[in-house]
Amino acid sequence: MGRVTERRKVLRIRDGQVSSRPDTLVAEEPLEIRLNGKPLAITMRTPGDDFALAAGFLVSEGVLGATEELQSIVYCAGATQDGSNTYNVVDVRTAPGVVLPDITLERNVYTTSSCGLCGKASLDAVRTQTRFGIDDTPPVRIEPSLLASLPDRLREAQRVFDRTGGLHAAALFSEAGELLDIREDVGRHNAVDKLVGRALQSGGLPLSRAILLVSGRASFELAQKAVMAGIPVLAAVSAPSSLAVDLAAETGLTLVGFLRGPNMNVYAGEHRIALRAAAAQG
Amino acid sequence: MGRVTERRKVLRIRDGQVSSRPDTLVAEEPLEIRLNGKPLAITMRTPGDDFALAAGFLVSEGVLGATEELQSIVYCAGATQDGSNTYNVVDVRTAPGVVLPDITLERNVYTTSSCGLCGKASLDAVRTQTRFGIDDTPPVRIEPSLLASLPDRLREAQRVFDRTGGLHAAALFSEAGELLDIREDVGRHNAVDKLVGRALQSGGLPLSRAILLVSGRASFELAQKAVMAGIPVLAAVSAPSSLAVDLAAETGLTLVGFLRGPNMNVYAGEHRIALRAAAAQG
Repeated sequence: MGRVTERRKVLRIRDGQVSSRPDTLVAEEPLEIRLNGKPLAITMRTPGDDFALAAGFLVSEGVLGATEELQSIVYCAGATQDGSNTYNVVDVRTAPGVVLPDITLERNVYTTSSCGLCGKASLDAVRTQTRFGIDDTPPVRIEPSLLASLPDRLREAQRVFDRTGGLHAAALFSEAGELLDIREDVGRHNAVDKLVGRALQSGGLPLSRAILLVSGRASFELAQKAVMAGIPVLAAVSAPSSLAVDLAAETGLTLVGFLRGPNMNVYAGEHRIALRAAAAQG
Repeated sequence: MGRVTERRKVLRIRDGQVSSRPDTLVAEEPLEIRLNGKPLAITMRTPGDDFALAAGFLVSEGVLGATEELQSIVYCAGATQDGSNTYNVVDVRTAPGVVLPDITLERNVYTTSSCGLCGKASLDAVRTQTRFGIDDTPPVRIEPSLLASLPDRLREAQRVFDRTGGLHAAALFSEAGELLDIREDVGRHNAVDKLVGRALQSGGLPLSRAILLVSGRASFELAQKAVMAGIPVLAAVSAPSSLAVDLAAETGLTLVGFLRGPNMNVYAGEHRIALRAAAAQG
């Protein structure tokens, strides 16, 4: 966990009282992701699970869909002038025969870092690139009370957030509410990529029975990452964006926002939420 | 303000009661930024102030530093197959004679979208690209009580947040605490770019006497945007990252985090915070 947080001196002002002390901060460092030796993207991330992050990023980009397509991931030495290994550059090699989508350097203006794929072009791109789509048969069906219990369990499981206040968390739960995995990162998209990458590494893709819970908002990008991993349910503690809702409606993703205590909003895919018929009146 | 929010149907669950109603969401759409006709970056943003966003982005990238370097900004028609104008593609033309830094398409893997510039390479890049640096003579000097008053004033001035819960806000204040400008966006980096771009357009760069307040966390990227615009003080309601603190210390930026009521942490540049000598004991 060493580099997940770092210590820095801070001047604390509390009701006019000033003190100087060390403070724990969330670590943020760049990670360059190379694909078969070619630089593809740089993301600002919290160090740790870097191979999973790179693998998950490539699932989101439609490059990887199964463990056997991944040949190796290594840290690149010699990325700095003095040839030392910064552990901030990883190279992902795909297995022979893996067909790479058109995400050459010329196109990756569309795909790097927090922004993910973009706009109309990528609403199309999701359709064409998705390896699995959302295919849960029979459909995952979740009680609102189960969903309501997840944010508290996410917070309980967060190890770093309380100390730094600087981390986003993402977690995978089974449809029965079992916590499958949790990752934290300074970038919410990285936390999701780390989850998805770990699933890829362990042969768990597509995540067709999983619930993805994120600690913040649901952007287009996060909705897209869910779809690319075959996840049928995305729940967010805060607000979704319009484009996230549009993508969810279009792909069949169940999108829940403002999940707070017993309250929540269902923006798309409501067939997966077990509503009692008697209560389903506006 | 039309496209700043959009309406979508939502299923609301409140303590087991279900109702269906329209909900107001923050709009998220891609903006492709072209520089002299060449695609440079795409960012997911809340529509509005698009020209300012593009201009501010180019200030952050070290391309623009003064109003006269900007020749024109236009929406590109014909960006879609049917030739219609989506208002999601802008082209920024620089004035004749403006020397463009090396941010060609081959390099913009390092510079697109929310991630901003990255890592060691870009800590160097900031030094070389900065047009002004932070140059406040005599140094801006701010009472903690003034800083403490700013978040409430930011929230009062936020027009959209309360309705959608999905927007980040950024505001510029004078050293006397006067609200100079405020912008909101689904991406925090966009809100800052919009502020900086409007300053560029009105001849207000460098912002060498301004305080930048952001509603969320202080990442490396936001600290860098502040430095690139010559802003001497960055205050954030939430946590900074380790790399944001490092950059602030290196560039002379005053970085305040966890600004909540009378409490705050000063991570760098404490000479701009007016501490009473008697209280300055740990």
